Amino acid sequence: MDKNAFRSMSYGVYITTSVDNGRPVGCVSNSNTQITSSPATVSVSLNHDNYTTDCIRRCGMFAYTILSEQSDPTLIGRFGFFSSKDKDKFEGVDYEKKSFMPVVKSGCGYVVCRVVNEVETSTHTIFIGEVIDAGVFSKETPMTYSYYHNVIKGTSPKNAPTFIAEG
Amino acid sequence: MDKNAFRSMSYGVYITTSVDNGRPVGCVSNSNTQITSSPATVSVSLNHDNYTTDCIRRCGMFAYTILSEQSDPTLIGRFGFFSSKDKDKFEGVDYEKKSFMPVVKSGCGYVVCRVVNEVETSTHTIFIGEVIDAGVFSKETPMTYSYYHNVIKGTSPKNAPTFIAEG
Repeated sequence: MDKNAFRSMSYGVYITTSVDNGRPVGCVSNSNTQITSSPATVSVSLNHDNYTTDCIRRCGMFAYTILSEQSDPTLIGRFGFFSSKDKDKFEGVDYEKKSFMPVVKSGCGYVVCRVVNEVETSTHTIFIGEVIDAGVFSKETPMTYSYYHNVIKGTSPKNAPTFIAEG
Repeated sequence: MDKNAFRSMSYGVYITTSVDNGRPVGCVSNSNTQITSSPATVSVSLNHDNYTTDCIRRCGMFAYTILSEQSDPTLIGRFGFFSSKDKDKFEGVDYEKKSFMPVVKSGCGYVVCRVVNEVETSTHTIFIGEVIDAGVFSKETPMTYSYYHNVIKGTSPKNAPTFIAEG
């Protein structure tokens, strides 16, 4: 099996968020996918080790911001390489609450969901959410995972589904 | 809810395939997503009305080819706007079988999976597959859904999760 095939799959880059007893939490994700059109449902796969995963399970809701090529690239380091358990990732970040969920305002738009199903795998939980709110922030070009790797020169946090150990 | 937010989500373009009593079947999809890294699992959401959905359920396996910007664009019309029930979509198409599954050879690479879980929604089945085979065909630039819409000027088949009725 040549796992390099996975590198040709295309994704966006998202900040997936929830709340921990009212405190905003979040992490970087790339597996956000629209599943059905009507009613609109989406899925996102998050590692069991992400604190945001526990918070979404407890709260039953999540949101995500769709990052653009113009989004502040430091958001990815802030939300992708630390844990919301130890750090207030939203400190100094321009965000607002939409339908009770925090959404980062630097991006193309946002989606808010209530969890309607959870699917367990060995390392990740797939949350399936019915969309209860969505909005457009800008018409900027969406950031793709490929753009992030090739232009921003990022590397995957080790909890990402698409993480491939080097060497 | 402004459903235009969904238009900023990024996807690739894939030909998802299976077999119907040995006969190759397939359809266009864009929801193919890597879920876990080790073991590698992926998901794909397919409309109940797609004949390929029934075939995957019966067969317990599926595959997909990752299309590139250089892939023959007529593949999308052939695999996206007809039904495998009525038409041999592979007639005249360069394909081969990998681990018993047909894969179209015009693209970046392929992935073959055995189904380990199925999740039902009102209109779509989400297949979760453990990857049993994968390979690279070329280093061509993967076709994104955005490229397909903006350059090839395609429109979503009405069974796609991302279909938005015009007007």
